[in-house]
Amino acid sequence: MLLDKINNANDIQKLSVNELEALAEELRLKITQTVSRNGGHLASNLGVVELSIALHYCLHFPEDKLIWDVGHQSYVHKILTGRKEQFETLRQYKGLSGFPKRAESAADCFETGHSSTSISAGLGFVCAREIKKEKYTVVSVIGDGSLTGGLAFEALNNVSEIKSNYIIVLNDNEFSISANIGGVSKMLSTVRTADSYLSLKERVENRLRQTDRGDKLADKIKQTKSSIKQVLIPGKLFENMGITYLGPVDGHNIPELIRVLNRAKRLNHGVIVHVKTQKGRGYLPAEKSPDVFHGVGAFDIKSGLPKSAGGKTYSRLFAEAICELGRQDASIVAVSAAMSHGTGLVEFEKAFPERFFDVGIAEEHAVTFSAGLCTAGMKVVTAVFSTFLQRAFDQILHDVCMQSLPVVFAIDRAGLVGADGQTHHGIFDLSYLSLMPGMTVMAPKNGPELKEMLAFALREERGPVAIRYPRGTAYTGLSEYQAPIVYGKWEQIYEGEDVALIACGSMVETACGVRGLLLQHRRSCSLINARFIRPLDEEMLVALARRHSVFAVLEDNIKTGGLGEQIAEAVLRLHLPVSLELFAVPDRFVEHGSVTELKESLGLDAESIAHRLLSGETK
Amino acid sequence: MLLDKINNANDIQKLSVNELEALAEELRLKITQTVSRNGGHLASNLGVVELSIALHYCLHFPEDKLIWDVGHQSYVHKILTGRKEQFETLRQYKGLSGFPKRAESAADCFETGHSSTSISAGLGFVCAREIKKEKYTVVSVIGDGSLTGGLAFEALNNVSEIKSNYIIVLNDNEFSISANIGGVSKMLSTVRTADSYLSLKERVENRLRQTDRGDKLADKIKQTKSSIKQVLIPGKLFENMGITYLGPVDGHNIPELIRVLNRAKRLNHGVIVHVKTQKGRGYLPAEKSPDVFHGVGAFDIKSGLPKSAGGKTYSRLFAEAICELGRQDASIVAVSAAMSHGTGLVEFEKAFPERFFDVGIAEEHAVTFSAGLCTAGMKVVTAVFSTFLQRAFDQILHDVCMQSLPVVFAIDRAGLVGADGQTHHGIFDLSYLSLMPGMTVMAPKNGPELKEMLAFALREERGPVAIRYPRGTAYTGLSEYQAPIVYGKWEQIYEGEDVALIACGSMVETACGVRGLLLQHRRSCSLINARFIRPLDEEMLVALARRHSVFAVLEDNIKTGGLGEQIAEAVLRLHLPVSLELFAVPDRFVEHGSVTELKESLGLDAESIAHRLLSGETK
Repeated sequence: MLLDKINNANDIQKLSVNELEALAEELRLKITQTVSRNGGHLASNLGVVELSIALHYCLHFPEDKLIWDVGHQSYVHKILTGRKEQFETLRQYKGLSGFPKRAESAADCFETGHSSTSISAGLGFVCAREIKKEKYTVVSVIGDGSLTGGLAFEALNNVSEIKSNYIIVLNDNEFSISANIGGVSKMLSTVRTADSYLSLKERVENRLRQTDRGDKLADKIKQTKSSIKQVLIPGKLFENMGITYLGPVDGHNIPELIRVLNRAKRLNHGVIVHVKTQKGRGYLPAEKSPDVFHGVGAFDIKSGLPKSAGGKTYSRLFAEAICELGRQDASIVAVSAAMSHGTGLVEFEKAFPERFFDVGIAEEHAVTFSAGLCTAGMKVVTAVFSTFLQRAFDQILHDVCMQSLPVVFAIDRAGLVGADGQTHHGIFDLSYLSLMPGMTVMAPKNGPELKEMLAFALREERGPVAIRYPRGTAYTGLSEYQAPIVYGKWEQIYEGEDVALIACGSMVETACGVRGLLLQHRRSCSLINARFIRPLDEEMLVALARRHSVFAVLEDNIKTGGLGEQIAEAVLRLHLPVSLELFAVPDRFVEHGSVTELKESLGLDAESIAHRLLSGETK
Repeated sequence: MLLDKINNANDIQKLSVNELEALAEELRLKITQTVSRNGGHLASNLGVVELSIALHYCLHFPEDKLIWDVGHQSYVHKILTGRKEQFETLRQYKGLSGFPKRAESAADCFETGHSSTSISAGLGFVCAREIKKEKYTVVSVIGDGSLTGGLAFEALNNVSEIKSNYIIVLNDNEFSISANIGGVSKMLSTVRTADSYLSLKERVENRLRQTDRGDKLADKIKQTKSSIKQVLIPGKLFENMGITYLGPVDGHNIPELIRVLNRAKRLNHGVIVHVKTQKGRGYLPAEKSPDVFHGVGAFDIKSGLPKSAGGKTYSRLFAEAICELGRQDASIVAVSAAMSHGTGLVEFEKAFPERFFDVGIAEEHAVTFSAGLCTAGMKVVTAVFSTFLQRAFDQILHDVCMQSLPVVFAIDRAGLVGADGQTHHGIFDLSYLSLMPGMTVMAPKNGPELKEMLAFALREERGPVAIRYPRGTAYTGLSEYQAPIVYGKWEQIYEGEDVALIACGSMVETACGVRGLLLQHRRSCSLINARFIRPLDEEMLVALARRHSVFAVLEDNIKTGGLGEQIAEAVLRLHLPVSLELFAVPDRFVEHGSVTELKESLGLDAESIAHRLLSGETK
């Protein structure tokens, strides 16, 4: 095993170029095996095995800086930088993260998780290096999908300003997460097939030089900025922006990759190295369905089939609901940002292709585009994961809320998401949405309620409505409690006295557990499903205060600005004679692990909550 | 006066093309006079007089949809759509807004204020029009500066998908707000001077056809997507993205503009009309200094000089402080997003050009770039207006806070900003920054404290620090109170009992007024400068609760998630026996007007606050 020789960063440089290809196969196997057990991002990692090897052959860690855009493709990098043994613990509680982490290794110089940040960060390193007159190489690796994110373009716009080396590797697999979208993709596809233009270019120049006064014309063309020379080679966009373009290079040919990277290192300005890779390379099921194997749970390595089917997910129920509603109302349209698969919109797209819009990895545009659609009379459902919707904070506030547009936000992956960890938990949405004037914020207690809420939200015309719901299998309990949804009104599920458990979303299930434990200790309690986080049901708060001395608020959101803090303000304003216990995600970032493990570690499981309520800290 | 004939939308179409030029001069005069009295955006409006006229000549309102990016250049549009008489009230309380407002006129189809949203919104209209099989023309007008914003690029990437008419007017004045930045600007400058390439192109083709087998080569070139024909004309970037390019057109030649717009209307896909305009056109001081006349207060029309000088602004004091600190510490760098003028960084740029970065209108990139600089060892001060920093919400949270990077955010124009109104008030920052784990949030009570805070923040190494301060002249009062800044500790200014006035930022001055009024009514009170909004000074809260029965919290931020709500949570958690009165911006958007008028209308002036405290609503 060649991998036996790889124990620390830079060990790879002891291998011969010939050995590197065998190493690539060992890495593929290790990654596929580990991901089949632990889940993770498979297709993208299999696509960059040779690229990662070549980068590690040409760079020196930790001195040189390598920034992986999004970061879910950093598995090979992790294995090659002293984390081979820990790799078994990938994405497990207290184990290796699925994304770059500075605390794990000095070879992880910048943490990523959301798309399109790597050029901005890389440019920061380059500028700091120049000011401090240091010497190291900076490389950002960005996918063609991430390049459609506006942030990447903003950064690229600034790369033309620099006067020292900076390498951007464009990892072009013709995919974002779903298939690629739009003009950038069109442009790249021109570039991909552009090899023949090089010879065409030479022929044009030669032909011109053969004619009368042709030399002069050929020279003139050479001088102009838009000369034939620049024009007929690929990468014109980048060259026009003042960035040298090298490529396209076969991303699975290690010697060629090493050659072009070494050449790129010698330039005194920004350079794009265009590398063509294949997502899922080397594992047939992933080659066939790279979108399915983008992020996966544990699967059977032989068949490629997922190990546990489980019940219906919230995403699935959302998919059913929006298709049903879309059949009834032809003015309903749906918008996704490269996540038609993850959000469940694939079926809506199939059923109503002319009413579905995938805008690419571009959450900001998704939201302002939705505002435009809505102003022009459509009923718009914009489905985005909670953590990614953070990117459109200003667009929701400035373009949707300020105009009171009734856009419906279907916010998947809210709360704790588990193994993706820190960069992906949806624990901020209740806070950042509640602060927006005119925004209605809802969360369903179980699967059927999500469907009800979507229908309700599409009927609501006074302004935008956000419905946030968790990752994974939908809760099926409490299905006998289905009080009709009334704007701003909570649902009382169990009546008791003493303690009022006020819970929202996934915490209603937890609250059922808490209630059971409290009853065991002969402590009576009510259970309220706080369907509306915004506006609060103040009438119910007042009513509850008559028969309860404690309000316990349960939410899977950061404490600051969340449901509990809003209730605190109301309790004081309404002079309610109760004490308040908040159970929320404490004000810090949360690592990866199973949702159960994480809830326990945060004191958000039923046992911890019941214990705190019983221990009398309240009084 | 031709303007006498313009009373309603579309009236302009009764004029002859010859009369339009005279109308242009009348409009210039009217706008210059009004802005010289009321303040406003002068240079950008003078630049688009002819363009606005031509658009109104070719479109029909309100059926057709015209979206102004940013919207501060919509004055001519307002005058031409039935708002001529009200134009005198521009930017005044209860008067016309300086930005498009749907409530003002059906001809304002989409509201703007922040940069780079117009293509996303326009695309929304186009897609809705196709679904509903309606017939109207959609035009977005976007400046070359706004085009550097990533959102515009995300949208442009999607324009290539459409199969019906959509016109994007690129208003190219070679300026964003400061001079333009980066690769896009470089590319456009190639295009601007590209007229001569057209003839070059023809000569190349002709020459080829004269040679042996040249015809075949010329044909081959024609067939390829990157053919010489496409390549030697300007607008290659757009053509590559699947968008037709027309231009460049002289933006002050009305007949030519009308011709090209009518031609653009006939195409069945996206089309860019590249219009070259001159900022400040027709008013000499604005032609000379378009950045100074971007947004101005009242000025003397003859000299172009501002009417009131006033004292030093917070921006000015920030400028002094960062230059002073930059001299002492060579590791300090400053980052701006096209606002070096507005934020006061111009002088730092002059003094330390290699340590200053203007990234263009690109707040997201500004923040992630700052994160990169900081990770690489620089002390970074990122200066952005509060309302624009909203755009970088996810970058602050995900790229700065999650890595605990000690980036310093200097947040100008916080709180109510006055005449710019709804889209520009900085009333959300305390809420959206406080919810970010690890973020320290500060606000100075007066000018000297801002300087102290900046020095303090640059010494702070545990994580990011945000300092937010208002627009305009700095408060100079309370200068005898300068307790050294200690992390997380508030400053007690006056000691009393009964009512504790806890105020932050500009509201400390207001609180002084409240205290005076309470004392007149023999009500004793303490005054606390809540320097730190995050973390709260809980020790002081506990101490205050011993001698006060009422906490009155004063902030110029939205109520939800702000200082008051955080204190509410602490009061309940710490079981403090006090009642709480929150004085904050209510949870709605706030119109334009003077800050004094707005504070009165919101009940945030000293009289209203004192009245509410004295009226006993508290109890």
